[in-house]
Amino acid sequence: MSAHRKEAVAARAAPPKRVEADKPFVGPEDLAGFDPATMLGEPGSFPYTRGPHRTMYRERLWTMRQFAGFGAADDTNRRFKYLLEKGQTGLSTAFDLPTLMGRDSDDPLSLGEVGRCGVAIASLADMRRLFDGINLGEVSTSMTINAPAAILLAFYICVAQEEGVPLNNLRGTLQNDILKEFHAQNEYVFPPRPSVKLVIDTIEYCTRQMPQWNTVSISGYHIREAGATAAEELAFTLADGLTYAEESIKRGLDVEAFAQRLSFFFDVHNDFFEEIAKLRAARRIWAHVARERLKARQERSWLLRTHCQTAGVTLTEQQPENNLIRVAYQAMAGVLGGTQSLHTNSMDETLALPSEHAAKLALRTQQILAHETNVTQSVDPLAGSYFVEKLTNEIEAKAKAILDQIDAMGGVLAAIDRGYFRRAIAESALAQQRAMDAGRLKVVGVTDFVEEGAPNIPILIISQETENQQVARLKELKRRRDAKRHQAALERIREDARADRNMMPALIAGAQADATVGEMMDAMKSVFGAYDGGPEW
Amino acid sequence: MSAHRKEAVAARAAPPKRVEADKPFVGPEDLAGFDPATMLGEPGSFPYTRGPHRTMYRERLWTMRQFAGFGAADDTNRRFKYLLEKGQTGLSTAFDLPTLMGRDSDDPLSLGEVGRCGVAIASLADMRRLFDGINLGEVSTSMTINAPAAILLAFYICVAQEEGVPLNNLRGTLQNDILKEFHAQNEYVFPPRPSVKLVIDTIEYCTRQMPQWNTVSISGYHIREAGATAAEELAFTLADGLTYAEESIKRGLDVEAFAQRLSFFFDVHNDFFEEIAKLRAARRIWAHVARERLKARQERSWLLRTHCQTAGVTLTEQQPENNLIRVAYQAMAGVLGGTQSLHTNSMDETLALPSEHAAKLALRTQQILAHETNVTQSVDPLAGSYFVEKLTNEIEAKAKAILDQIDAMGGVLAAIDRGYFRRAIAESALAQQRAMDAGRLKVVGVTDFVEEGAPNIPILIISQETENQQVARLKELKRRRDAKRHQAALERIREDARADRNMMPALIAGAQADATVGEMMDAMKSVFGAYDGGPEW
Repeated sequence: MSAHRKEAVAARAAPPKRVEADKPFVGPEDLAGFDPATMLGEPGSFPYTRGPHRTMYRERLWTMRQFAGFGAADDTNRRFKYLLEKGQTGLSTAFDLPTLMGRDSDDPLSLGEVGRCGVAIASLADMRRLFDGINLGEVSTSMTINAPAAILLAFYICVAQEEGVPLNNLRGTLQNDILKEFHAQNEYVFPPRPSVKLVIDTIEYCTRQMPQWNTVSISGYHIREAGATAAEELAFTLADGLTYAEESIKRGLDVEAFAQRLSFFFDVHNDFFEEIAKLRAARRIWAHVARERLKARQERSWLLRTHCQTAGVTLTEQQPENNLIRVAYQAMAGVLGGTQSLHTNSMDETLALPSEHAAKLALRTQQILAHETNVTQSVDPLAGSYFVEKLTNEIEAKAKAILDQIDAMGGVLAAIDRGYFRRAIAESALAQQRAMDAGRLKVVGVTDFVEEGAPNIPILIISQETENQQVARLKELKRRRDAKRHQAALERIREDARADRNMMPALIAGAQADATVGEMMDAMKSVFGAYDGGPEW
Repeated sequence: MSAHRKEAVAARAAPPKRVEADKPFVGPEDLAGFDPATMLGEPGSFPYTRGPHRTMYRERLWTMRQFAGFGAADDTNRRFKYLLEKGQTGLSTAFDLPTLMGRDSDDPLSLGEVGRCGVAIASLADMRRLFDGINLGEVSTSMTINAPAAILLAFYICVAQEEGVPLNNLRGTLQNDILKEFHAQNEYVFPPRPSVKLVIDTIEYCTRQMPQWNTVSISGYHIREAGATAAEELAFTLADGLTYAEESIKRGLDVEAFAQRLSFFFDVHNDFFEEIAKLRAARRIWAHVARERLKARQERSWLLRTHCQTAGVTLTEQQPENNLIRVAYQAMAGVLGGTQSLHTNSMDETLALPSEHAAKLALRTQQILAHETNVTQSVDPLAGSYFVEKLTNEIEAKAKAILDQIDAMGGVLAAIDRGYFRRAIAESALAQQRAMDAGRLKVVGVTDFVEEGAPNIPILIISQETENQQVARLKELKRRRDAKRHQAALERIREDARADRNMMPALIAGAQADATVGEMMDAMKSVFGAYDGGPEW
């Protein structure tokens, strides 16, 4: 085991020693040497610990962005309109597993999964129906998709063009963070290097064409959900962000042009103050990295802006209404940590896709937080707290130590090749499971306060009929499209891939020729290859 | 209008100017001159801003004390056992309106109110059934009762004696705060001065006989619910506490003997940080008052220990599940403020008495807060926060200004005679209503995000049959009891009242002779008189 490796294990294995065992509180004496001017600054000023903006929620609330998607495009279109009517302020699209894996709805491997965990989108025609009646020039749209992200972006661009919305008016976020798929979520298709190339293609395209679009949502969420600690979530996410930034610079992009459109996405887990500290530390580390390592000169390139989602993994199937309470606390941590947008999970998400009622209550949680608790009145209200500043410093130090280790390994891609991330996450997950088994980690309704009987709330069921209709629609599209134009479009994709060109123009042309997600992915796979899952460990 | 009066109005009318208009955050520069050593101290040390105990929830969680009571004694007895089984750690009794007003269940004025808003207790026999099968030597019991508090305490003492539990083992709290009834809640019977005398009787009795019993729960809750500001709630409550303490000293009691058994009871309203600041300021002011004004020498006499309840007035009939979210945030404010015990309201309390399911969810809220959020790991985690310390200082200053005004009027009793409290509360309530009307104060589901349709959750209905049975049982008791012993007991109550003796022994004898609440109240009223409601304003 290398010295770095040993350190990494030690850093993770240590229990969160926030407070000395014989001293149950943190006081001014614990912050000796703490300099508010350099460690905090003012909100909206370097190093942005106190928030990316000077006035934050006093002038503009965070975006309430509930992740939604199920069934076919029309089903999700109705839910989007319902959420907008209830006061949601941004859209966020959840795709089904076949779409996420870049497979068509009529692929035999898709059977039984179409529209189950999100909406099924296989073609430009599906995308048109998804946003039917919604003005893409006015709404901001997030799309949670990774391996086929460039293709879904191409669909979105085509819909906007058909509606006559100029591309530079489009606002939204493409998740497009393939690195965390290799670390944690497993929804990759191509090997790491061509996967990253595709991400850089979209960054390059959007930087030139869609200046208001967030090109990547660099996501700690899935890393954390897979079992990473807060410090690992932070470090791995920032390392991924740094990788995209450095690759973009290698592509010849100006850091000032793309850095401001990198966004982040963190989990907000149960540990209230740790999560607040994590978000504050994230901004401070990124500001230094952007200025000192990426050599960005403009303030807007130093800002870490983030979306947050409450921690799905903390929700319980048992006594599902308890999840409303968990989500409420997590949401507040996200807001006190200074998030720019927030998804609150629905209480029924461990049982099924969110019902309309459950989705509404999740949104109401954000509205009550925003309008009734008055936590929005003063920016970064916990600044100066001995405990919170100490936690922030500690989590920053832990994350920086992990970042140094990744650098020592040769960066994120090299560390993926070694299986570093997966091993680290698995070890943390195991430690957490052991803590729960040993009774040190309690879960109401699961480890304690257990009740007999099944949960009794109405849940949403997606019928087999939805899948059948979606498959029929897709087969019909494949029958009717212009076969020649379609074949030519796929050939261009293969050719551009071979020639190492930016894939976006070819994918847009493919979308317009009614090439499907699965077909375009296969065309790229024939050149990029498929990932084998990396080393065993 | 006197100078004091003008100041009082000005202090209340001022909008909460916590942050300079042009500066949306608080920073270190706003806490110039703040001395942590004297303003905070360590937890468990003077002036207790950071909490009455050094280790707080790290060693012992707050008491989860859900207020419960409905129907007849047997109904509430079953709910008590249900809550204890679900993990509640203390009992809290809600009485019905007739009992609160000192009227028997069979009084014509009680018609339609028996067992509706709490449990009907008219006699020692009812009290026996209320605690049947519950060991009074092991449980801690709170009783929310005021005008007839001494009588209910007498019942409780008799039940304990019958069970063979020594009085010095009894733990619990009698609300017994009649002053706030004159300010806000209107459940008084006798005029202010004999009312306070009765409170001092119970303090004297318990100080000598029941050293573990909290004699008064000095309550800001109802003051706040009636519309007072946070600073008024704080100031009026501390002023009431000071009055009980000074009257007890006049009675000849040693401050070190009774002060440690005065407890407080605050509302936790929506404004998250203001509520935390209020609880921190409360401890600091009281520590100084106890040491410097009451001349207490022992540390335990300086400690303000408090119960908190989430703010019933913030709950909405509309979309009742939203109340789960409100209560969750309020509960966290109570805990971050360092409360010793907590009642979380049930989501259905604006519609009916809590159903079993709703009561359980309210308890689950506390359990999730206690066991999952990890906010218990460090005592007073917000200490040092520029914003929270500034808020704490500000609310302390406002409350002290109000305390000075009350002193200048000649104290609480004199201020009641002038109608001061009622007028102040009404003005604040009006200001709040105006803010809501003007759209400055939003309520989700009421002023904004409104939905059509009636709330759809199951609610608890108390049947007329419950009342009929309770009345029949009481009439039977009155028929069967020893009439001679009963008459003698009532005569002794009148005689002790006339002779200005401590009423407790006569009330205990009355309880044992099956004299009812209404009869004993009437006996005292024949001597003490009835209150006419004070001056119009």
